[in-house]
Amino acid sequence: MTQQQPVLALDVGGTKLAAGAVARDGTMRSFCQIETAVGEGPTAVVKRLLDLGDQALTEAHLSIDEVGAVGVGCGGPLDPATGVILGPPGLPGWDAVPLGQLVAERFGDPAYVENDATAAALGEYRWGGWGVEDLVYLTVSTGFGGGIVASGNLFRGAARQGGELGHVVVDWQGRQCGCGARGCAEAYVSGTSIARRATEAVAGSGSTLTGLPITAKAVAEHARAGDRIAREIWDETTAMLGRMVAVLINVCEPELVVLGGGVTRAGAQLLDPVREAALRQAMPPAARACDVVLSHHGDAVGVLGAAAIAYERLEDA
Amino acid sequence: MTQQQPVLALDVGGTKLAAGAVARDGTMRSFCQIETAVGEGPTAVVKRLLDLGDQALTEAHLSIDEVGAVGVGCGGPLDPATGVILGPPGLPGWDAVPLGQLVAERFGDPAYVENDATAAALGEYRWGGWGVEDLVYLTVSTGFGGGIVASGNLFRGAARQGGELGHVVVDWQGRQCGCGARGCAEAYVSGTSIARRATEAVAGSGSTLTGLPITAKAVAEHARAGDRIAREIWDETTAMLGRMVAVLINVCEPELVVLGGGVTRAGAQLLDPVREAALRQAMPPAARACDVVLSHHGDAVGVLGAAAIAYERLEDA
Repeated sequence: MTQQQPVLALDVGGTKLAAGAVARDGTMRSFCQIETAVGEGPTAVVKRLLDLGDQALTEAHLSIDEVGAVGVGCGGPLDPATGVILGPPGLPGWDAVPLGQLVAERFGDPAYVENDATAAALGEYRWGGWGVEDLVYLTVSTGFGGGIVASGNLFRGAARQGGELGHVVVDWQGRQCGCGARGCAEAYVSGTSIARRATEAVAGSGSTLTGLPITAKAVAEHARAGDRIAREIWDETTAMLGRMVAVLINVCEPELVVLGGGVTRAGAQLLDPVREAALRQAMPPAARACDVVLSHHGDAVGVLGAAAIAYERLEDA
Repeated sequence: MTQQQPVLALDVGGTKLAAGAVARDGTMRSFCQIETAVGEGPTAVVKRLLDLGDQALTEAHLSIDEVGAVGVGCGGPLDPATGVILGPPGLPGWDAVPLGQLVAERFGDPAYVENDATAAALGEYRWGGWGVEDLVYLTVSTGFGGGIVASGNLFRGAARQGGELGHVVVDWQGRQCGCGARGCAEAYVSGTSIARRATEAVAGSGSTLTGLPITAKAVAEHARAGDRIAREIWDETTAMLGRMVAVLINVCEPELVVLGGGVTRAGAQLLDPVREAALRQAMPPAARACDVVLSHHGDAVGVLGAAAIAYERLEDA
């Protein structure tokens, strides 16, 4: 590929699939998004993902020959070396799905698969406009995870999972997490967990959420409107996220913690209490060196992350 | 300096002062150790530290002209750029002590000051014989702290504290820590905390520790001998350390977590339960890529760490 060729980027979320053509400076030349419909199983979902990739190329007026590589972000665990997906909790049935190979076969280009939140951390570093060399990115989405950039390099770790940030324990006596442990951050901080805890709490409570389809978005809205139960769930969520961010500030001493993902659409209702709690609870020198902010990338954060991975791996190749 | 010149290394602990001359391959050409006697205040303690440095040179048959630099490890917070100590909890009265300057004036060589546990992580990386590129070192000593080596480089972080590992929260509803927060690892895992919690628990309990001077060592011995109270304190300590190590394995995905410091003299009584808990609680891919071990450096771990810092900074200079 030449330095000028754009990449195709694919983002496999538990709720949404997204695709886009992304130029080296982070400009999105196209962006398409559809529902994942995870219940259809991996074969059908992967087919629609690949079709969405074609659509993103068409919308960008690109033929596949004009693209240098395909970057793919997906929930982990997965093997970034082989591109095989290893049964992520948010994608039931995706055991040993050779996603990298399927993407490479369809597009005839090298395909680079990475954990979606790890990828998004690199996207925020490259194109977030933050001007920092050390950041932690956390995605509060269907699931919860994150990635670390240290001294301008994406951190991958000995297990190549880029940090299991969703499974940092915030309350060892707390809720059972899907991973089997107790009190992981993800047991409190994710759209799925917010909706589940609200559903449990609403039963017989007289909450204004009673009888409604309970989503993280509904919990945020009803909390804003003053519903006590919704507010308790929201406050617990931000408190646990604040604690977890404080742990990360102490361990990683980043210049910035960037929050993204669908639940961050709540804006200041999420950011303000998390930022306050995290910077208060972290050790003062580490807290003073750091800030907590929201990503500006909105729904495109996953596609930009996947694109950043494609460029990074091409540079290393 | 030439590549062959040894360095002088000084280690300021809350309980012990140590000094040694260390060759580039990690060979200790001398090692001297005395009590810190922290109650005497910084002026007197620093004078004895500098005298101990002279003694280490004499024992190694070295004149100061034959030494390339002086490395100094000390409890943080401190400023590694200026060598000023900023009131560490383990060294009461050490506010704004210009330790680097005092050392440089005495020996006429460049002096490089670093957090002692951060320094020890680099010493374990260079001379621990582990053959890994990614490790976390934790010191369980008078205090509790640690350092991170990632891809063969000492991690320093935006706040230049190298990670505030002692203040990772293991129980947000737990004991008050000296830093003001609740449930930091250091509130459970340190010689000071073990002795303090045992002292609280022994009162009126019929424990075999009653009436004895209660130290972490005594708690370990009485726990081994079957005393219920001592065992409860020891088990709580190893459980909390195990949780904290699991968090670090999830965040940092190291190949190795190395435990050192005076409390690790308890050997398998400390290591076995911590290792079991940490590897069970961390996410399986990260746990499989990692092991938890004891440092082989014993009391010399601080001096070797300080020496490693001196060599690292000379290489960067």
